[in-house]
Amino acid sequence: MSGFTTRRALFVLPDGITYLDGNSLGPLPRAAAERARATVADEWGPLLITGWNKAGWMDLPRKLGDRIGKLIGAPEGSTVVGDTLSIKVYQALASALELRPERRVVLSDSGNFPTDLYMAKGLLDSLGKGHELKVVDPEAVADAIDESVAAIMLTQVDYRTGRLHDMKALTEKAHAHGALAIWDLAHSAGALPVDLTGCDADFAVGCTYKYLNGGPGAPAFIFVRPDLVDQVRPALSGWLGHAAPFAFDLDYRPGDGISRMRVGTPPVIQMAVLDAALDAFEGVDMADLRARSIELSEQFIAEVEAACRDVTLASPRDPAHRGSQVSFRHPEGYAVMQALIARGIIGDFRAPDIIRFGFCPLYNTAEEVSRAAAAIGEIVATGEWDRPEFRTRKAVT
Amino acid sequence: MSGFTTRRALFVLPDGITYLDGNSLGPLPRAAAERARATVADEWGPLLITGWNKAGWMDLPRKLGDRIGKLIGAPEGSTVVGDTLSIKVYQALASALELRPERRVVLSDSGNFPTDLYMAKGLLDSLGKGHELKVVDPEAVADAIDESVAAIMLTQVDYRTGRLHDMKALTEKAHAHGALAIWDLAHSAGALPVDLTGCDADFAVGCTYKYLNGGPGAPAFIFVRPDLVDQVRPALSGWLGHAAPFAFDLDYRPGDGISRMRVGTPPVIQMAVLDAALDAFEGVDMADLRARSIELSEQFIAEVEAACRDVTLASPRDPAHRGSQVSFRHPEGYAVMQALIARGIIGDFRAPDIIRFGFCPLYNTAEEVSRAAAAIGEIVATGEWDRPEFRTRKAVT
Repeated sequence: MSGFTTRRALFVLPDGITYLDGNSLGPLPRAAAERARATVADEWGPLLITGWNKAGWMDLPRKLGDRIGKLIGAPEGSTVVGDTLSIKVYQALASALELRPERRVVLSDSGNFPTDLYMAKGLLDSLGKGHELKVVDPEAVADAIDESVAAIMLTQVDYRTGRLHDMKALTEKAHAHGALAIWDLAHSAGALPVDLTGCDADFAVGCTYKYLNGGPGAPAFIFVRPDLVDQVRPALSGWLGHAAPFAFDLDYRPGDGISRMRVGTPPVIQMAVLDAALDAFEGVDMADLRARSIELSEQFIAEVEAACRDVTLASPRDPAHRGSQVSFRHPEGYAVMQALIARGIIGDFRAPDIIRFGFCPLYNTAEEVSRAAAAIGEIVATGEWDRPEFRTRKAVT
Repeated sequence: MSGFTTRRALFVLPDGITYLDGNSLGPLPRAAAERARATVADEWGPLLITGWNKAGWMDLPRKLGDRIGKLIGAPEGSTVVGDTLSIKVYQALASALELRPERRVVLSDSGNFPTDLYMAKGLLDSLGKGHELKVVDPEAVADAIDESVAAIMLTQVDYRTGRLHDMKALTEKAHAHGALAIWDLAHSAGALPVDLTGCDADFAVGCTYKYLNGGPGAPAFIFVRPDLVDQVRPALSGWLGHAAPFAFDLDYRPGDGISRMRVGTPPVIQMAVLDAALDAFEGVDMADLRARSIELSEQFIAEVEAACRDVTLASPRDPAHRGSQVSFRHPEGYAVMQALIARGIIGDFRAPDIIRFGFCPLYNTAEEVSRAAAAIGEIVATGEWDRPEFRTRKAVT
């Protein structure tokens, strides 16, 4: 486990800040700062339009897809990077529905990140074919899978509570009923071992600005099961998913395999930054990372509960059922989080009453966990949160 | 006109390079290089997740939309930045079709950039409602507008020839027949004056990596006519287009006005770079820029035709019918362009036989135009293009 302590130096972690964001935005990898500079000043500047070839910009979506693929158990050539997670959810679901044309139910749960549900609803309304977006409680998903379901569309780790779905069991059940399985790995990729091949997942999507540390607005990724991808008709049939983008044919022909899930011109600077950020995972055994993550989260729960009775654990107590985050409920969660941030301890608030903390073994330490737990105890016990400057809501937290 | 010569210093233009790319990628503005560094090192690094508020990241899509709006005759609050142009085309067309539910024809032309046609086809195939994508010759568009047309979807400036559509006349004709007008401004924004309000355009989209110099993979923009936007149901209903993104409601409610055309988390680094790039347009009168652009392109045509009989003008001879680019045809256009690039003169090749040159008064000079014209004359007259290294095709040009 001690191997992780040396990786902390790979990141810019400001003095006085304990960063337990859970995880909305990973910290800046030092290599990413240099890569951003180099991409702009050493590539765009001197190479101009020739950078698409000479600097390998055009290949970044596939290259990055393969690098992320290694962290999520996806074989080479099955994952590609681009767009935002919302767009990738849309692509996956649109594809799944066409592969199950006779079915009319998309099954999701109330723990899914809202944008997944919004994008699904938007797609179903556009289609106007009587599809239903069925949203059940997370615990009720398995029982709701039946022959009417075209696809289950779930986020593996609940963004609020950290509750972990059993991806393998739910995918198996979906397949047993002829449904496809779409997994959102937003809070999974880089946070815990994922085995898309072992789970036989059909589609997976995720973002790269959380545990992968790709920076604000870093692009998303999409995986399609290799034996399924050539049956996929891309709904978002952009030119860079074309078999021959630079032939400028008037008719669309999908590219081979996962390339067809590319859409428009990739955001090269963000992609280069992500490429550098992924270096922090080189040589990391995700099983080791998971073990260390559990150590940190178990320590956190124990110390918070010892320091403070007025918060309630919102995450599963069994670490096997949790992602790499821990959430507590407090009726004044917003103000409690603001008070923590004022002390330099950064987590997230998620409406209505959740304070959320993420644990990233690449840079978080046991000392940080203790500091955060002690601060929560003091802030709640003394009512330190009850100040106007902490209670006034800002647009984004 | 001389005012433009001082702006050249705002850009990084490598020694020995004459950059007449037409225009696939604008050059690096010096301010953009510094802004990329600052966004990463001074914002993401120290501010971490709080950057969304403290550094104004969340507001960039609207702020940049308004800055671009000023260049295209769009009122404040009617334009927003995000995603890729392909995605924005899809959004605009999906919206237009729902506003004209009884109509089944999307009218475009063979001079449209292929990805617009691909995205349209992908959307129509998803809908499965018997829509037709009717692609006519550019000259035949006006006559093809009738009561069956839900929307015309056109690129104002033909990416190959530079031929300029009459946006006002075609929009008027579309409206007279009850159709909506969607304009792609990829080769217009920052290249010539555009008056979306005066043309009464319904939707407009564009990219920012061409004449706006936003960098490789810079985000796209979308404009919706202000009196239409509140009728738009976003097909790509992502969380950042929601009326209250951070309430995390399970149900989607579109945001006010143009905000509903936002989708996912914006690419902050690319957006910050674009913001800096747009500074080069501060104080520019687009009518002056257009006049200077025409001077440069008229000079280019005259000098190329004087130097060389074996190329054919592919662009309209009347500058009033041309964008800010000039194209010539040569049967070995690919090799001719490679030979030019080997001499440090950078334009684009577009299949099957077009060599394309763009003229950007912000940095291009009359001397550069003469140098390029003379080089074309020599390369074609001496057969300098006829070498294996120039004839071998690369993936991207």
